[in-house]
This record gives sequence, structure tokens and C-alpha cells, in this order.
Amino acid sequence: MGMIGLGKMGGNMVRRLLLGGHRIVGLDRDAGVVADLAAQGMEGADSTADLLARLGEPGTRAVWMMVPAGPVTQSVLEDLASQMAPGDIIIDGGNSNFKDTMRRAEELRARGIHYVDVGTSGGVWGLQEGYAMMVGGDEAAVERLRPLLETLAPAADRGWGRMGPSGSGHYVKMVHNGIEYGMMQAYAEGFELMKAKTEFALDMAQIAELWRHGSVIRSWLLDLTAEALQSDTELSGVSDYVADSGEGRWTIIDSTEQGVPTPVITLATQMRFRSQQELSYAGQMLSVMRRAFGGHAIKTVEAHREEGLIPDINPADTSAAEQLGETGQQRVKDSE
Amino acid sequence: MGMIGLGKMGGNMVRRLLLGGHRIVGLDRDAGVVADLAAQGMEGADSTADLLARLGEPGTRAVWMMVPAGPVTQSVLEDLASQMAPGDIIIDGGNSNFKDTMRRAEELRARGIHYVDVGTSGGVWGLQEGYAMMVGGDEAAVERLRPLLETLAPAADRGWGRMGPSGSGHYVKMVHNGIEYGMMQAYAEGFELMKAKTEFALDMAQIAELWRHGSVIRSWLLDLTAEALQSDTELSGVSDYVADSGEGRWTIIDSTEQGVPTPVITLATQMRFRSQQELSYAGQMLSVMRRAFGGHAIKTVEAHREEGLIPDINPADTSAAEQLGETGQQRVKDSE
Amino acid sequence: MGMIGLGKMGGNMVRRLLLGGHRIVGLDRDAGVVADLAAQGMEGADSTADLLARLGEPGTRAVWMMVPAGPVTQSVLEDLASQMAPGDIIIDGGNSNFKDTMRRAEELRARGIHYVDVGTSGGVWGLQEGYAMMVGGDEAAVERLRPLLETLAPAADRGWGRMGPSGSGHYVKMVHNGIEYGMMQAYAEGFELMKAKTEFALDMAQIAELWRHGSVIRSWLLDLTAEALQSDTELSGVSDYVADSGEGRWTIIDSTEQGVPTPVITLATQMRFRSQQELSYAGQMLSVMRRAFGGHAIKTVEAHREEGLIPDINPADTSAAEQLGETGQQRVKDSE
Amino acid sequence: MGMIGLGKMGGNMVRRLLLGGHRIVGLDRDAGVVADLAAQGMEGADSTADLLARLGEPGTRAVWMMVPAGPVTQSVLEDLASQMAPGDIIIDGGNSNFKDTMRRAEELRARGIHYVDVGTSGGVWGLQEGYAMMVGGDEAAVERLRPLLETLAPAADRGWGRMGPSGSGHYVKMVHNGIEYGMMQAYAEGFELMKAKTEFALDMAQIAELWRHGSVIRSWLLDLTAEALQSDTELSGVSDYVADSGEGRWTIIDSTEQGVPTPVITLATQMRFRSQQELSYAGQMLSVMRRAFGGHAIKTVEAHREEGLIPDINPADTSAAEQLGETGQQRVKDSE
Repeated sequence: MGMIGLGKMGGNMVRRLLLGGHRIVGLDRDAGVVADLAAQGMEGADSTADLLARLGEPGTRAVWMMVPAGPVTQSVLEDLASQMAPGDIIIDGGNSNFKDTMRRAEELRARGIHYVDVGTSGGVWGLQEGYAMMVGGDEAAVERLRPLLETLAPAADRGWGRMGPSGSGHYVKMVHNGIEYGMMQAYAEGFELMKAKTEFALDMAQIAELWRHGSVIRSWLLDLTAEALQSDTELSGVSDYVADSGEGRWTIIDSTEQGVPTPVITLATQMRFRSQQELSYAGQMLSVMRRAFGGHAIKTVEAHREEGLIPDINPADTSAAEQLGETGQQRVKDSE
Repeated sequence: MGMIGLGKMGGNMVRRLLLGGHRIVGLDRDAGVVADLAAQGMEGADSTADLLARLGEPGTRAVWMMVPAGPVTQSVLEDLASQMAPGDIIIDGGNSNFKDTMRRAEELRARGIHYVDVGTSGGVWGLQEGYAMMVGGDEAAVERLRPLLETLAPAADRGWGRMGPSGSGHYVKMVHNGIEYGMMQAYAEGFELMKAKTEFALDMAQIAELWRHGSVIRSWLLDLTAEALQSDTELSGVSDYVADSGEGRWTIIDSTEQGVPTPVITLATQMRFRSQQELSYAGQMLSVMRRAFGGHAIKTVEAHREEGLIPDINPADTSAAEQLGETGQQRVKDSE
Repeated sequence: MGMIGLGKMGGNMVRRLLLGGHRIVGLDRDAGVVADLAAQGMEGADSTADLLARLGEPGTRAVWMMVPAGPVTQSVLEDLASQMAPGDIIIDGGNSNFKDTMRRAEELRARGIHYVDVGTSGGVWGLQEGYAMMVGGDEAAVERLRPLLETLAPAADRGWGRMGPSGSGHYVKMVHNGIEYGMMQAYAEGFELMKAKTEFALDMAQIAELWRHGSVIRSWLLDLTAEALQSDTELSGVSDYVADSGEGRWTIIDSTEQGVPTPVITLATQMRFRSQQELSYAGQMLSVMRRAFGGHAIKTVEAHREEGLIPDINPADTSAAEQLGETGQQRVKDSE
Repeated sequence: MGMIGLGKMGGNMVRRLLLGGHRIVGLDRDAGVVADLAAQGMEGADSTADLLARLGEPGTRAVWMMVPAGPVTQSVLEDLASQMAPGDIIIDGGNSNFKDTMRRAEELRARGIHYVDVGTSGGVWGLQEGYAMMVGGDEAAVERLRPLLETLAPAADRGWGRMGPSGSGHYVKMVHNGIEYGMMQAYAEGFELMKAKTEFALDMAQIAELWRHGSVIRSWLLDLTAEALQSDTELSGVSDYVADSGEGRWTIIDSTEQGVPTPVITLATQMRFRSQQELSYAGQMLSVMRRAFGGHAIKTVEAHREEGLIPDINPADTSAAEQLGETGQQRVKDSE
């Protein structure tokens, strides 16, 4: 099989395939990466034409693209398709939008080329633990890829499967990522809440480690989180900017188009959007509105904290009131 | 009637009552404020005892507290109650928690003192337009206050009403504020979205003003917003920190105790919490998790923007892909 | 001007234009509707060709479409455009997606036809109160429509405006509807919460009416709500199914594509999705999960209520505990 | 050690302790349960006094309560405490509110009795796999319980830990359950979305099983879900009513009191509230509002589906439009 795109993901997949005894021809615009993998047993190619020539008879070839979704995938695909023959297989292992995949599969079908989409999960751990692969495409084409998929997966019969027709592999991977966002946000909220509970002086690293054993919420994400917290509980210097990939957004869009309520997945993604804002215009609008109807002064966080305007929402504390004594008269300044 | 607390709210209410021909005795720890209102016709008092002495026969007196909820209200209340007699009325016009109000009413009932809660809305505009007042307490006591309430309200028969027993006035006001948060957030989100749509170069002030006339979403909040935007569309220099009062929080707590879903009111309040954070520990946790499973580098907002890593979520742009040409091969760096 | 689509919206707009002294030629597939409006002064047409013939010189004509967004708009548009000439104007007053509008405007521009989008708000009250109209399109074309827009709006200089280029009118209207969803949900949540507070026996109609006067949350939606509640406080027999229009969904999609957090608008729309479900597969999944890890029996609502399994979340009530006495020993059956 | 409450949780914990070689004296109001465990090596008691008498010297005894939170826990606790001596330990292994626990610990401290809270996770699987236990209380008291905790946990040094002072164990368990709700909802939303995607005819059981191997979202909850789906993919007959325990609600309340945004945990819990409603008053209100401003008829789900009013939110389908041909004229009936 050919592999185009030998980055962190593609490179590791090639390594796992080589360890599994497969012959792989690889192509990447970075010759150094190609040379590095060639030293591990991969056959290097220096162009698409060269790659295809090394893969044997037209109609029996398979090329796996492991390149960024969007224009790069489209470009590589067009370049490949223009040089391939009926019966050949192109695999998109990236995070493409399932709608793009469906469209591409239909275009290639007219030319007799099989298009297989493989939603791939596992991250940097896939080399060692295997990749979960959600596959979409014609049954016959998927069957031809079976030996490769069985090697890439955690075990021959586990962690991969044909979901359905073209696009379904990317679709299931998209939902997978949406769920991932929701889970991550659930953990993050819980840890933030516990961190804020300063009266208990809780140890985040200890809790994450404890929960890994016997709790209902144990998971692989928690395993990694616990490990990360061991080395840095305070997260000092870590940015709270949280990037998001297209797949979380597509999940929201798909759920909206389908009319299915997905509040948790959606909010998890929107909180990432919020983290990406330097200044929230919505927040500014709210400040302006509060000033307009309540005469609330517009303050900064620091000013609020210094003046102790963070509301005391607990029931009236009689003892505190007693200390105020007869001088307790103050005035309601603002009203909503 | 006596009024304790002559701040922005209490002072304006006294002014409206004086204009309505009522005799008001006022008390505030700031003698200057008392003197100022005295010049407008109010009778000033210099202590609780003095205030009560000026209000006539024990058992017929009514004192309105317009002081901050919490310990101050508790303190003023205890001071007052210790000097009042059966048949007297104490009114809490502040934003007290309805549970506190129910408890206080029960304690005072044992001593024969009526306790009336008045949830008051209208902000700085109340002097001119009248206050919406949601009243809780014994029917007879509320009836005795009718002349005052009819003057404070926008009209004698509109904008005030007895909601039910003690606590219900503050309860309805609490929900009022919860709704207010939801409405404000809805507007703010809409304006933020339109502001971000730079290709249309929309004019926020123009839109707010347009919507005031004939649209389904016209409202008093929009009137004020439109006015505020006229003078400052860009909101330059306005903080995006949004304070919250206890009542929004209590609404969430009450809905949680009742098991009633209130996603919009809750999220509106939580987005204010988010605006109050300087650094989000949850966001930091998410960054750490992403690094742990995907090898994602932890970046700052600036770094992300410079590198253009904000995801391109639209369908593959073929023309862009074509420009990439044969050099289009890149690699998937990260995976989730 | 010509008007195609004389339904509830289009018909009322024609009436308002006729009252304003404009000459209107109308077309609808329902001859009865045409006849009815003809009796009020409209000039009826029986085909697109007839309509256009009655509108004067090619290049000076304007036709307003008031038909459903989607295929109907596309069909009417194609029919119209094929018979129109450079310089003519087509107006889409429906709730089209702004992306469709931008595409259509570009196609028509190539043929010299102006395309103006008018997002229209006001519902059934527009005839009497005027319509809020958000207009997108070329400045010159919009200027030619000024006399019509000034008549349709609540006043000549209020309630309408050119937002920007083609698509911007529908875009602003889309956001308007998103905000509307958020506001409506905020009110609905508040009323539901108060309705559930049975100990206060609150009167929803009284509260809605009170809030109209002097409160911060007074609005036109509240005016209508108060009126509706006067006649039916209990809402007995009213379905809790809440339909949604495309525009709420598009707002979510646009905010997702832009990466702008809109939690309130989104949740308001998703709660409508939830109301449209007869049986929630997500809810079923959760029941199954709870059984799997906690041994929780899967119950129906009725069973839960009969058995009193709704959790008692308040702090331990000592007096209740005392009544249980020595027979208080029970067992924790389930655990999460 | 003594154990009071031998239900599903308490009984299994006794079994695990017996297997670990501990001597346990058990008490339950159901004599059959006591007899059953006695046959497995437990020593049965028939009253609190009897239980305490069998536990050795006053001041060295420890009794673990595994009874429902709330009044039952309070009642059992009072009964126990009245018969115990300084130096004795009472353990609350149930799901009590941490505020109750803090109050109780303080009351018992005055009497010299140690109060230890153990938040316990693991459900019906704990017997076999061990329990995750989050412990709060005095260090010395917790240390005395170490042998028991090491047996109950998945391993002597894993799955349990002292979090901090009294209340902290229940607090961390509370947050644990909040996170659990968020995770469960994330999965449930994802599966619902995929189920709705009928064009792909996806197999939920296959996907759940696949994701267990190599995916980023693998977890113990997913393990159980996959197993449950194997036997019943369609979930036919399963109610979509989702009960909730107090701890999810307390997490919302605590986050609200702390001002920490927890949208995912909160929404997960609120969607359970929604599932518990037979008829949503909020939904009814929205229907009434829509009728009031838009003339929208109030319909049932069935009526909507029959009439095909579910909005078509995708871009205009030209081919569909072409089929409509010249008869395409319809009218905009409603407007928002």
C-alpha cells in the first residue's frame, strides 16, 4: 500500500504496518521524513507517479492519504485520481467532513475508483496501542484493506469495522470527537469546581489517580489526565485557550440539521469558542445594558474583587449581621 | 411611612412618594443624603428610635427597608424589630432570598409584627416611570400599604400586586431577574454574532434602533440598548466582565431543587461566571488533556491566530486546492 | 409593484400598501385570495407574464416574493427571472437562508437584475402596527423601493433600513429570530418555574400583566403573553410541542461556523428539538447505562412518582428523621 | 467493624470485607438479609446495642452506615451516637450532602466521636472489582480504618484516599457523580445522533464495541454500554425517563454558589429533569406565544409530522424547485 503524508499520524501508522510485516511505499514533501522511515523499512517515493509505479498493477493499488482535511486533501486526491485506474482504492484517513467524502466518493465511483473513508482515533498512542478505525465504503474495497486494518487496529478483530457506505466512517468519527469534547469538558468542569473549593484544599492529582481505580468514571482520558497532573498539578503557565477541530463543529451542525438536541456536546464546543476570545463583545454588551437600566458602573474584574462586590448568595448570616450592629444601615445602590 | 436606606433606589422611591403627597420619614447613615432629601420634603430621622417616634402610634407604623440583602438587612431588621410593637409592619424592598424572607416573616409573626416583602424592579428609571412591585405577605398588611404602592407603581392599578404569602414577592422578583439574564444574554449573543460577520459590515446601533419598531423582539431592554449604542457602537474600552446579583444564582438553585429544567436562565448566568474568570482552570485542564492524547502543543491565542490554526470548517474549497497544486502534500499533525 | 404570494403575510402587506396609496398587482395560485384583495383595491394577475405586463416598462419593474423559503422561492424566482429584464428588481421577503440569497443575487447580477432581500418581522400584527424590515442589496435598488418600505414600516423613518449587501437583510432577520427564541425560552422557563412553586399558588396571568408595567423585562412578547394568559391561565389542552423555523437552526450553524458562543440561542432551539421527540433515544441510552453500572431498575415516570423516588435533595430534616425512630434502618440500594 | 444497612451496596461490601479476612458485625432491619450474610461468615446483630456490644471496647469501635442519605442517615446516626463513646468512629458511606456531613462531624466532635465520610463509587461491580472510595475526616481516624479501606478498594494502594477534612469525601464523590452525568449525556447524545442518521443505517452495538478498543473515548461506562447494547440494540420498550440522584443537583448548587461555570454537568442534569416531565408547561407557554404573535396554529407532534412542517433547513434544492414548476406559488403563512 502507498501512504501519502508521513507526519505524526501517518508516520506512526507506517511504523505499525511495517512492524506487522506489510510492504509500504511512502510519500511526503519532506524528504527527511521519507528517509527516516525508509531506514525503518519503508520504501520511499519521490512523486505521486513514482509511488503509483511502485504499487503494482493498475486496478489493484491502494493509496492511503493522511493529510489535513480541506484543500490539501482535495488537492492530493485530484492529483492521485488523475493517475489512477478503475479498481484502484483511495483511502482518506484524515478528518474530512463526511459530506465532502460522500461527494468525492460519488465522483470517483463514476471513474471506477473506490473511495474508502477511515475515521481514525488514537492519537500519539496509536503506534503502541493500535488505532480505532471507523471505515466507510464499498464492502469489497473494505475487504481488500482488511489485512492493513487488522494490523493498524489494537487487535485483528477489535477496534475497526465497516460502518456503512462512503462517508459513514468519517461521520462516526465526527460524532466520536463530539462525544470526546463533552467528556473532556465534564472532567474539566469537575476539576475546576474542586479546585475552587479551597476550604478542602483538595489535591487534583490524587483525585484523578484515585478515580482511575474502581470508579464509575474511569476512562482512558482520565488515565492520561492523571498522568499529566502528576507532573504539574498547578498547571502553572498553561494557557486556558482551547483549540477545536472541525469535527466538533460539524457535530453541532449535523445535530442542528437533524433536529436532535445535543446540549452537552454543543456547550463543550462553545466553551472552547469562548476560551478563544480575547475580549467578548457579548460581555461588553451586557455591561452596557446593565449600566443603562440599573446605573451599574462598568467595572473590571480587579475592581470588583477589591470592592468585594462578588455577591454573597448564602442565607443571611446572623452573626455577621450582629457584628454590624447599629451602624449596619447601608443602601441598595443598584437594582435589576 | 419610614424609609431606611436612602441610596439610589431608596432615595428615588422617597422622591416619588413625596411627589405623590405622602409623608415620609427617612433614615440613612449618611447625614448628607438625609439632608438632601429633607430639602425635598422628607422628614429626616437620626436613629431608628427617632424614626419610630415620628411615625405615630405603635401598632400602626410601617417601615420600609431599602438596604442590601444579607447581613445588612438582617441587622437593620433586628434593630427595628426590637423597637416595634405588635401590629407594626416592616417591609423588605431589597433583593433578599425568599427563604430568608419566609424565615424572618415567621419569626416576626410570633411577635405580632407583619413582614411584607416587595420585589422591586425598575432601576434608575423607576423615579420617572414607576416601579414594578411584586408583593408578598398577609393580605391585611398589604392592604394597609396600598396607597404607597399605588404611588410607587407606574399607575395606581398597574405594576404592583400581591403575589401570595410572605416570600412570594421576593420569589417572583427572583424569577424576574433570572428571565432578565436570559433575555440580556440572547440579545448579547445576537449582537456578538452580527459583529463577527465582518463581510456584511453591519451597524449595531442601526439594527438595535430598527428592531425597536415593529419587530417581534422589541422590548424596554432593547430601547435602552439602542440608546446606549447610539453613543458608543464600538464599545471601545468597555470591560467584558459581567457582574451577577444573587437572584440569578438563586433562580438556578431553586430550579435545581424543584427539578425544573432552566437551560437558558442557567447558561446566561454561567456565562457571567465565565466572564468573571481571569484564567479558567477548566480551560487549562483541557489544554493539558489535548496534549496528553494528541500531542497537541499548548498554545496561546496569539500563537493560534498567527499560525492560522483556527479550523477551516467549510467544505473543501476546490479552487484553493488547485492552487496548492502538486506541492499540496502535507501531513496530519494531530489527531483526536 | 407586484406581489407574488398573498397568504397571511403577503396579503396583509398588500393591504397596508393599498392603505398607503400604492398601486399593487398581486398573484397567488388561489384565485379566491386574489379576488378578495382585488375587492380591496389590488389589481389581480393570473400569471407571471400577466403580472409583469401590468407593471410597466421592463427595467423599471419590481416584484416582491412572499412565498415559503426553499424550493418554492427558488421555483418562483426562476420563473420570474426568465421573464424579467435588466434593471428590474426582485425582492425576497421570505425567510430564505442568507447563503441562498447571496448565491441568487450573484446569479441575477450577471443578468442585470437586482435582487433585494427583506427580512420581515411583525407577524399577524404587521398590518396594523407596521413591519420591521431588514433590507439587503444594492443601494440604488433599495432606494427605488423606499416609498414601499416607508409605508410597510411602522413609520416612514423607523423600522426599516438597509443593512448592507445582498444577504445581509436575511442574515439580520435570522439573528433576530435566534434572539427571539432565546427570549421566549427565558420567559417560558421562568413561568414554568413559578408554576411549579405550588406553595405560593402564584397566578401566571397576574404576574405577566404586572411585569408589563415598570419592570425591566417588559416587552412586546410579554404583552402578547399576558393577553394570551388572561383567557387561559392553565393552558389546559395546549400541546407542549414547539415547532421551529429554519432561521433558529441557521443561527446555530452560523455561530458554529464563526466560532462564536451562543449558548442561550442554541439551547432555546435545542429545547424545541427535545419537545418534538416522542421518545428520546438518548434518554433510553441513559436508562440502560444506569442499569448497567448501578443495577438501577428501569422505570416509567409513573412508577417513579408512585414510589417517591424523586430525590429529596434538601439537607437532612431532623424532625423527619426522629419520626423514623429506631426502625429507620434502610439500605442503600443503588449507587452511582 | 460494624455495618448498618446490608442492601445491595452494604451487603456486597461486607462480602468483600469477609473475603479479605475481616471480622464484620452486621445489622439490617431485614432479618433474612442478616441471616444470608451470616451464612457467609458475617456476625449478625439484632439491634444497635447488640451490634455495639459485639464490637469490643468503647473508644475503639467503628460502625459503617450504608443507608440512604437524608432522614434515614440522620436517624441511624442519632441512634448510634447516643450509644457510642469518645474515641469511637462512625462512617457514613452513603451519598450524603457534604454540608450535612460537615455539620454532623462538628456535632460529634463535641462528643469526642470521630465522623468519617466515605464517598463510594463502583456500583454493583464493586464486590468483584473493588470500590473507589473518597474519604474525609481526621487523619488519625482514617488511619485506623486503613485495613478496611485497603480491602474494599481495588488494591491496597489504589482507589482510595483521604481527600481532606470531614465532608471532603462526600464532596469529591458529589463532583464525581456530576462528571458521570456529563459523560453519560455525551455518549447518549452521540448515539442518538447516529441513530437518527438513518441513511447510514449504523449499528449502535457495533460502534460501542469498536470504540472500546483504541479510541480516545474508551471508558468503563462505554464497556458497560457496549455490553448492554449487545443484547438490545433497539432499546425497544425502554423508558426514556432518566432518574437523577441528589448529587447531580448538589453539584449544580455548589457550582452556582461558587460562581464556577459548569454548563455540561448542569445541562446533563437538566436534560434528566426534562425527561421526568410528562407535559412541559414551558413548552405550552411557547406554543401560546407563537400563536399570539405569529398566528401559528397550536399543533401536536403527530399533526406536524403528517403535514411535513418540520423545517427544510438545507439550501434550496433546485431540482426540487424545478419539479414544482409553474404551480410553485405558495404563500408564507406564518412569520416570526
